[in-house]
Amino acid sequence: MTIKIFVTGGTFDKEYDEIKGELFFNKTHLTEMLKLGRCELKVKIETLMMIDSLNMTDTDRKFILDNCKKAKEEKILITHGTDTMVKTAKFLASFVKDKTIILTGAMIPYKFGSSDGLFNLGSSLTFVQTLPHGIYISMNGKYFHWNNVRKNKETGKFEKILID
Amino acid sequence: MTIKIFVTGGTFDKEYDEIKGELFFNKTHLTEMLKLGRCELKVKIETLMMIDSLNMTDTDRKFILDNCKKAKEEKILITHGTDTMVKTAKFLASFVKDKTIILTGAMIPYKFGSSDGLFNLGSSLTFVQTLPHGIYISMNGKYFHWNNVRKNKETGKFEKILID
Amino acid sequence: MTIKIFVTGGTFDKEYDEIKGELFFNKTHLTEMLKLGRCELKVKIETLMMIDSLNMTDTDRKFILDNCKKAKEEKILITHGTDTMVKTAKFLASFVKDKTIILTGAMIPYKFGSSDGLFNLGSSLTFVQTLPHGIYISMNGKYFHWNNVRKNKETGKFEKILID
Amino acid sequence: MTIKIFVTGGTFDKEYDEIKGELFFNKTHLTEMLKLGRCELKVKIETLMMIDSLNMTDTDRKFILDNCKKAKEEKILITHGTDTMVKTAKFLASFVKDKTIILTGAMIPYKFGSSDGLFNLGSSLTFVQTLPHGIYISMNGKYFHWNNVRKNKETGKFEKILID
Repeated sequence: MTIKIFVTGGTFDKEYDEIKGELFFNKTHLTEMLKLGRCELKVKIETLMMIDSLNMTDTDRKFILDNCKKAKEEKILITHGTDTMVKTAKFLASFVKDKTIILTGAMIPYKFGSSDGLFNLGSSLTFVQTLPHGIYISMNGKYFHWNNVRKNKETGKFEKILID
Repeated sequence: MTIKIFVTGGTFDKEYDEIKGELFFNKTHLTEMLKLGRCELKVKIETLMMIDSLNMTDTDRKFILDNCKKAKEEKILITHGTDTMVKTAKFLASFVKDKTIILTGAMIPYKFGSSDGLFNLGSSLTFVQTLPHGIYISMNGKYFHWNNVRKNKETGKFEKILID
Repeated sequence: MTIKIFVTGGTFDKEYDEIKGELFFNKTHLTEMLKLGRCELKVKIETLMMIDSLNMTDTDRKFILDNCKKAKEEKILITHGTDTMVKTAKFLASFVKDKTIILTGAMIPYKFGSSDGLFNLGSSLTFVQTLPHGIYISMNGKYFHWNNVRKNKETGKFEKILID
Repeated sequence: MTIKIFVTGGTFDKEYDEIKGELFFNKTHLTEMLKLGRCELKVKIETLMMIDSLNMTDTDRKFILDNCKKAKEEKILITHGTDTMVKTAKFLASFVKDKTIILTGAMIPYKFGSSDGLFNLGSSLTFVQTLPHGIYISMNGKYFHWNNVRKNKETGKFEKILID
């Protein structure tokens, strides 16, 4: 079993530009993070884009969808900015039925030391192995169905819309 | 749903004694790690012992078993040294049938910066949510059934005995 | 001997706002850094402002000057953004003759893991102990007299204007 | 001006052997640390030995002395375990009069995240630039003359024997 990882950017991969004193995107840190976690799963990493999810367009989402459909793998992990993660999940859910797709992200960039990214990565790679077909968001050790989740903008946490 | 976490020591929690220049055990770092990972799961952490698993006795294993049985929670995570993790898993498997128990550990102490512990913790807390009743070992993003796993002493990695 | 440390902000103390996804200033990390470095010097830390040095006004510089003059301590360290560090050093040099004042900063925020701040802090606290009265900039293990230094905007490094 | 750095091992360079679960010495981290600190000084690093200073013999000390004498550089930094650092300083002081030699170390290994090593390195490279000829120990932001220092074995800190 091989897991496909699509990188789209988001807080996960933000870096600090020391000349300009600003945040920016360079290359993904996924390979480095998997090595740090001593991950022994078979994964294929492919960077689709490196953007803040607030800047993600419909064309970008279509591109993500096309890649999810095209992928031979049945299990797909997408790293994504948290701000529009739910929107992308909904879009994918309309068109993909026969795969397990997990979207995950981070609140603190991996390069900034105290990142939640490594924990989320471990958690998401596990959900993608064990959950049935469907589109899910995985954050904070939890998973959410695409149609019952929202980001609480004040706390920065993901939560169910309808509590069961 | 609440997840019970039993701490038994192992590399996860090793620290550096700066006066003696040696490794030692103090308190567990689990709470700190869950905070770093921004974990939002309901967990109850209980330290049963703080030892190197090479020093774990039959009495210690009996004590772990008793606590697993006594626990109200159906989902249990045990942090454990990797050297005798398989032995403890086998012992628990003989007596516990109606719970999901995951044993996990780390190759590098959490306090030593480049730890695989945070990744394993995220991964294990997910397996415990999604796997059916049984005793499992979770390392390197993978899970293993208690009766089909061994630690490769040369590579330090866990692997299946019988490849399926 | 007590060393006075005046905090003015700069890259040293930048943090990541996880709700807004932006850089911001909160409290100084100097106390934490001195603890990490196991510093045993007597220091008094006082935060004068928490700003990006690009936003530092003449009024701000006057406020720093007044505090340098008023301080009982003969040895003063100022943490400062690198962009206008030279400007502040020149301003102080016109008015303070009887103290050793070191300005220092960082290219990467302390909270972002790979910071040069701890190295610069160790270096600067040593220059302030050993250099004669005067105004200096300390970066990258080197010290510069206020009147023979510039920041190279392309490399981000400080360098002498006239090579001796 | 070039600074010679002689590496002898000590806590600075201890690493964690993940197969054996023990501390060990591999290669020095000095180059990596200088890069992290963005040090722009001209330095030449030479590893003389990689040992715990409790195991340092008279032959080892003689070898360090010979290298200090032979070095063209007038400014020398020696990384050294803290336990017998004072002994080595005394030995060197009997034979070297025309150089500035700083011995430094760490209480926590650099690889273990919360190391005081980077702070000490910044501090020591500054003392070696600014102090007159002599043999000194630099720890915790302070410097000590070779003949007025001891390591307090209970606190792990270096202190003056005679307070001035």
